[in-house]
Amino acid sequence: MILATFKSGKRIGYAPSAPSKIIAVGLNYIDHANELKMELPKEPLIFIKPATSIIGHLDKIIYPESVKRLDYEAELAIVIKRICKDVPEKTAGDYILGYTCLNDVTARDLQKRDGQWTRAKSFDTFCPVGPHIATDIDPGDLKIDLYLNKKIKQSSSTKNLIFKPHHLVSFISKVCTLMPGDLIATGTPHGVGSMDVGDEVEVRIEGIGRLINKVSR
Amino acid sequence: MILATFKSGKRIGYAPSAPSKIIAVGLNYIDHANELKMELPKEPLIFIKPATSIIGHLDKIIYPESVKRLDYEAELAIVIKRICKDVPEKTAGDYILGYTCLNDVTARDLQKRDGQWTRAKSFDTFCPVGPHIATDIDPGDLKIDLYLNKKIKQSSSTKNLIFKPHHLVSFISKVCTLMPGDLIATGTPHGVGSMDVGDEVEVRIEGIGRLINKVSR
Repeated sequence: MILATFKSGKRIGYAPSAPSKIIAVGLNYIDHANELKMELPKEPLIFIKPATSIIGHLDKIIYPESVKRLDYEAELAIVIKRICKDVPEKTAGDYILGYTCLNDVTARDLQKRDGQWTRAKSFDTFCPVGPHIATDIDPGDLKIDLYLNKKIKQSSSTKNLIFKPHHLVSFISKVCTLMPGDLIATGTPHGVGSMDVGDEVEVRIEGIGRLINKVSR
Repeated sequence: MILATFKSGKRIGYAPSAPSKIIAVGLNYIDHANELKMELPKEPLIFIKPATSIIGHLDKIIYPESVKRLDYEAELAIVIKRICKDVPEKTAGDYILGYTCLNDVTARDLQKRDGQWTRAKSFDTFCPVGPHIATDIDPGDLKIDLYLNKKIKQSSSTKNLIFKPHHLVSFISKVCTLMPGDLIATGTPHGVGSMDVGDEVEVRIEGIGRLINKVSR
């Protein structure tokens, strides 16, 4: 079932899912951690993207003047259904409304310079989300692909996630209360790379749909 | 002028200032950077605390079972007045509603373990704020102190800030849009240390007031 369509040209903040926060997980695919030559985390490594970074399907990603390298990162996002605090993994599914596509746009140069990832991932328009929330899918083995100008750049399956969605909801709910509409970005597979002004980027996840955005100044 | 009192036992999220996000600045006092043996940043180093971490004056800080070392960090917080995007430093003051006290509670063990600071600073109750928003003060040279069980632990002045409030508002507004009520935590001076269950912690800033919280399980 497809529950909601995010309106183009309008922030998700005003759409039915209204996230108050986006908790993102770093290095959650073995192949991506290897590609960055970073150690595998023993527990989920989280960071936050602000709600002001969200745009919808077909909205423009704005390439900031201060950024020298802008990367795409295709991700499966979990949409939270109801207030969620200290939830055990076995009942975490009761707190999940569904799943959507997310592009964790990252200023790779600033990420390296700062050490902390927040600034690199927090610019306005750096969190395309959509086009739908799929509520009746099993996230265990979904094909996840990213196309840049219609050429495939990332191709994996959610079966390669180190920490699975139910584990992530439980883990994060033991840190901070999750609110209805909040998003958890589950991490990106190998094949990350850069985008230029004029590029079209598409995140495609089996059973959800295609999230397409163009890069603009 | 004192504009608003934050209600005890009630999240600031439901109070007049209603922050959608808290942008915090790391290593913004020379003395604190030296104490942590960390290099001085050339530009502000930002991270985000979620709105769900906020509590008010006299609310309890909950010491999580999973945390081994819980630290206080006294900070001056900027409260944003209106939507703020790409603002130059010289007009940044027009976007500031006022200033308040903030305690950037940190799980120091998790901060070191993760490398990324987000989890360590995002637990529910880890962001005491209040007791007032002072709207008519000059933040250039305010005494900022922290007391643990009435003994002084941090004592400095906002004149020792590396990056000043107007610079921070401008810098952050060039990354993400700031919304009315959003908070910028400007960093903590030297003298950080740990708290135990039963402790009373007080952030005191000249011209603003005293923010008092107890640590509980």
